[in-house]
Formats: sequence, C-alpha cells, structure tokens
Amino acid sequence: MLAELAPGSAVAGVFTRSRCSSAPVEWCRKRISGGRVRAIVVNAGNANAFTGLAGEKAVVKTANTIADLLDCQTKEVFLASTGVIGEVLPVQRIERALPTLVGKLRSSHWKRAANAILTTDTYPKGASISARIGGTSVNIAAFAKGSGMIAPDMATMLAFLFTDAKIPPAVLKKLLVSSSERSFNSITVDSDTSTNDSVFLCATGKGKPHKAVRSASDPHLRDFKQALEAVMVDLAQQIVRDGEGASKFVTIIVKGAASEKAARAIGLSIANSPLVKTAIAGQDSNWGRIVMAVGKASERVNQKKLDVRIGGIQVAKGGAHVHGYKEESVAKHMKGRAIDIAVDVGVGRGCATVWTCDLTHGYIKINADYRT
Amino acid sequence: MLAELAPGSAVAGVFTRSRCSSAPVEWCRKRISGGRVRAIVVNAGNANAFTGLAGEKAVVKTANTIADLLDCQTKEVFLASTGVIGEVLPVQRIERALPTLVGKLRSSHWKRAANAILTTDTYPKGASISARIGGTSVNIAAFAKGSGMIAPDMATMLAFLFTDAKIPPAVLKKLLVSSSERSFNSITVDSDTSTNDSVFLCATGKGKPHKAVRSASDPHLRDFKQALEAVMVDLAQQIVRDGEGASKFVTIIVKGAASEKAARAIGLSIANSPLVKTAIAGQDSNWGRIVMAVGKASERVNQKKLDVRIGGIQVAKGGAHVHGYKEESVAKHMKGRAIDIAVDVGVGRGCATVWTCDLTHGYIKINADYRT
Repeated sequence: MLAELAPGSAVAGVFTRSRCSSAPVEWCRKRISGGRVRAIVVNAGNANAFTGLAGEKAVVKTANTIADLLDCQTKEVFLASTGVIGEVLPVQRIERALPTLVGKLRSSHWKRAANAILTTDTYPKGASISARIGGTSVNIAAFAKGSGMIAPDMATMLAFLFTDAKIPPAVLKKLLVSSSERSFNSITVDSDTSTNDSVFLCATGKGKPHKAVRSASDPHLRDFKQALEAVMVDLAQQIVRDGEGASKFVTIIVKGAASEKAARAIGLSIANSPLVKTAIAGQDSNWGRIVMAVGKASERVNQKKLDVRIGGIQVAKGGAHVHGYKEESVAKHMKGRAIDIAVDVGVGRGCATVWTCDLTHGYIKINADYRT
Repeated sequence: MLAELAPGSAVAGVFTRSRCSSAPVEWCRKRISGGRVRAIVVNAGNANAFTGLAGEKAVVKTANTIADLLDCQTKEVFLASTGVIGEVLPVQRIERALPTLVGKLRSSHWKRAANAILTTDTYPKGASISARIGGTSVNIAAFAKGSGMIAPDMATMLAFLFTDAKIPPAVLKKLLVSSSERSFNSITVDSDTSTNDSVFLCATGKGKPHKAVRSASDPHLRDFKQALEAVMVDLAQQIVRDGEGASKFVTIIVKGAASEKAARAIGLSIANSPLVKTAIAGQDSNWGRIVMAVGKASERVNQKKLDVRIGGIQVAKGGAHVHGYKEESVAKHMKGRAIDIAVDVGVGRGCATVWTCDLTHGYIKINADYRT
C-alpha cells in the first residue's frame, strides 16, 4: 500500500509501547517529530520485526526508493509492516513493486488501500466524516486493519487517518494522543500487544481555507476533535468486531473511578479477563467474575458502593447481590450479539468506556489448531 | 476443614491483592498482625465474597463458635473460603458442623484436610519436608488447593503451611513473603486473581528444641528457608499442573533482566500471553509470540541481545532468528508434556523462573460451555 501526500502535509503518529518494536516502527519513531510526510508505505504478510540489521536495511532501502520516485526527502517517508515476526523481509519485492504503485496512485482508491493492508482480517475497515473548523467544512477519512494480535503471527493494529484541514504537526500530535486513549487504547481482543502497532494522522491542508489553528486547545477545533474521536472509535470498534473467534461485541462502561485513567484500567481488566470473556461466550451473566476482575485491577474501589449492571439491569448494588432482579431479562440480553456491562466503583468521578469481544473455541482453533 | 494448633503457635499470612477481597480475607488481614493462631476454619463451595454485611456476620459467628469450642480467643481464629462469589454463606451449616469436627481432630488427618478444601481441583495437593535449624531437625508439612481462578466460579488459591519449629511471627512473615514471590506469585493459569487467595504459615514450636531464632537473616535459618521455598514451589507447581484444561506444564526461565522483579514480570508476561499459551497447546514452537510477550512486559530489554531457547535449543540469538537450528528437536520437545522456555533479555543480572500451563479447548469448555 502506497499513499502519497501533497507537499507540506503535516503528520503525527503513535506507536506500540512494545520493547521489541519492529524496524519500521523504530524508523518512524525517530522521524515523526519532523512533522512532515509525503509518503506512507505498508506491506502485509511480514512484520519486519526481530529481524536485526537486515530489517533496518530493508526499511532504509524502501524509504530511499520511494523518496527517489516521488522526489521527496527520506525523512518524509513513513513505513508500517504487519505479518509474521522474525522472518527477513524480501525487500527486493517491495522495491520492484513501488514504481508500478506510483503509476497507479488515485485519490479515489480508499477501499483498495484498506484492502491492501489486511492480513487475517475478515473485512476491510474504513470510516469518514466531515467537521467544521471555524465555520469551514473539512474532511477526515481513514482506514485500519487488525483484529487484536490476530491469527497465526499476523500481528498488529495499523490505522491511517487523513484530513484536508491545515493543522500543524504539534497540534496533530496532541489531538492524536488524546483521541487514541479513548479509541485504540480502549479496545482489547486478547491482551497481547503487537511489535508493530502504529497510528498515523496526516493533514494535507488542501481543503477549503479555514481559520488558522495554532494550539490543540483552540475553541475552533472542538468540532474537529469530536469528529476525529468519532472516526477513531468507529475504526477501533470495527477491529474488535473482527476479533479472532469473536461471537459477541462487548461494551464496558466504568463510572465512579478515581480518574478517567483508573476507570479505563478497570474496564480493561474486565475486558481482558479470560473468565469474564468465556462467561460471555457461554451467554452466562456471571457477575461474580466481573467483581473479581474489578478487584484485580489495582485501582481504588469502594466495595461497599460497587454497582454492576448487565444489559441495563442492576445485578449487584452496594457491594452485594440484588435479590429478585429480572434474571430472565439479563439471560435474554446475554443471548444477543451486543453485550453491555456497566460498573460503578463508588470512589470518584472518573469514567471510561472500553470495548472487547468474547473468548471462544474459535480463538483457540485459530491460534492452537495450527502449526507453523 | 478445621485445623487446631497448640497454644502459643505463631502465624503469618499473605492475602490476595484484590480490591474486592472476601469477608474471611478481610477478617484475617485485620488479625494476622496479632501473630497467634489456635484454629483455621475453611469452607469450600461458597467464597463468602461480595456478600456485604451478611458475609461479615458469618465470619464473626464462625470465629466465635470455634473460639468457644476450643477455649481460645477469636483473634486466634483464622478463616478461608473458596467457591461461588456473591452468594450468602449458609453459616448455620458451618456452626452445626463445627462440634463434630472438633471431636474428630487427629494429627494424622493431613490428606483428609487437603481433600476437604478442594472445589473443582482434580486431586488433593500436599507436600512435606524436614529441615535443620542449627543442627536440630524440624518438619514442614503443607497442603493447598486451586487450579488458577478455577472452573465455574470456583475461585481461589489457598495454602496452609505448618512447622513444628519455634519461630516468632515477625520472622515467619518475612520468610513467607519472600518465598511467596518465588512460588505462588510465580505461577499463573489464566491471569485472573481471586477475591479469596490466602496463604498461611504456622509454627507450633512443639518440635525438638532448637537454637533460638530472632531474625529472618539468622544464618541458622538458611536450610529452613530453602526447605520452606521447596515446599511452596512444590505446591505451586501442583496447582499449575491441575490448571483448567491444561495439557502441558510450562517452565519459563528469564535471565539478564534489570532485576529479579523485572525478570518475573517478563516471565509472567510470557506465561499470561494467550497467543503463547495457545501456540504451546498447538505444539507450535512459535518463538515470535515469545518475543512479542517479552516486548509488551514494559521492562527494560536489549532487543539486539535477546536470546530465546526452547527445550534447550537456541532459536533466536542477538535479536534475530538462528538460521539452521534443529527444528526437528524443537518440534519433538513441543510434543512433550513439559515445555521449557528460556529467555535472556541482555540488560542485567536479574533472573526468575515462572510456571504456567497451556490454553486449550478444555479451558473454554470448562468456563464457557456452562450456565449458572
């Protein structure tokens, strides 16, 4: 996948926190502060992770080749890889393909781009929205791939966000980081973190002229921020819905935590618990496991004020079981495709929403009933 | 299960870090600093967790009843529960049973005690050893239950360790805490932490008189410490071997970390990774997933010095794949019941060993193919 951007386009990125990050992630991390982007090159099938010097060389070669072809600087070229970890990238195949790709660049090829980056995803993932900056309409369009640390070795969540607004790199970075927390960092399929996760936000400034934007706190950005977060949440949810073996889409709302961060940690503790996830797979409203997962999150909780709702029905209140709640309604909710869990931990005003899927035989089948 | 201890017996305990800990855990945590124990009462089938005021009352009633029967103080009575979370404990059944239990107390009933505390464990877990304190032989005997946060709601790891040595409570506490790190805190089945986990170490002082022990760093305690850790590691490994759905016993050795704590965190990251665990279930020597799990542990790692061995055979060295390693030998190792993974992260001298089991269809079957 090759994306070309207009000269002067700004860029920001967030990358995996893995201490074993891939060669393309290391390349991007070093150059992203430059804030300018002319090209993004992505390959699927090989992660170029844990490939040592050969991996570094492959990245340099790819960047040099595309910089020559597009007549830009190598530091304006960003790269992402997804696929098998530990195998040397056959970079000559990429070098050979790039001139053809350059010839085929079209501004209408969004869906082709979204398809090109998939590994074991079962469908392409895209979203777009328009927003206003000081009365002027601008656009955001984006695509992503991933279904957690997906099927046999096919790691990685990648997302590419583009806007025609004119926003400086430092502001883009702030917008991206804060929206990432409430979108991509609020989803989990299996708790495993890829060596290659990358999210890019690019701004070409080629849309209609709008009021100049100089800081992330500029009130004119309010609508744009909401729109950006909406697109990112949309993509993040698409990833979870395509989680390996998933049969249910689970929304977990945590309220009453010490902070938003604490609320998110509690939500992710519930979302990552194998016992909660298997209970959901089994259509079992096992709220005791939810309490267990709240407890193990290492965040402040007032057990005596702890409330748990499933499908909107209160099953635990004030630190104990609600006697005589509508078990049939909860059982019916558990049979649906969309499961809603809400928890109030009773210590503060922090809240967060987290999305996940269930843990099924399908996950084991994909990841265990398989040999490399 | 009722255990009676001789007057003057010392006790130390470590308890779950869950913020939703059970009523018996809360009871014990408040009283363990008293350091004296005369009785331990355990029930299996109901966790008495998230049971509010009713749960607290049940604990007080049980402690009062046994204190009357054994003519001791309530603060010398310790309690543990394991089973379903969130259901009120039918305490009158325990009250009724206690006089009969007192009448049946025998010093030979170790195996009966080990059996009485089981929930969905498939076998009782016990260990004993003798040790020397300054030339005098003393004994340690212990039993435990648990197979992770085991099958439908039957949470909890419980362990009870007894010695006839004379060791003051403050020293017992230090010995228990440091040995817990290298035993019970170094195992994982599914990363879920129970609301009820408890480990007790009791010292009756009724064995042969030995040199007085006043501090945990007393050189006369060296052999006793090793023996205690050996018993605790033995019990911890028995729990992992009985992990739900487990088909493989996995030993993970981490070397070269910044500290022992960092090494344990990296080991647990590998041991808790669903992708590593499913690969092992699939008898797949997927070392890329091991690298991924090392990377996500948030501990210092030198990727360029990272070595990975499976079954003693080096598969990754210096941050890249080892070309031409004996794939057949590794494949043969993966087919066995005991899997050995060793990782050197190349930054320091910290090392740790962690034990786990694989993640199989059996786990999903036990936890999902089920309705409450």
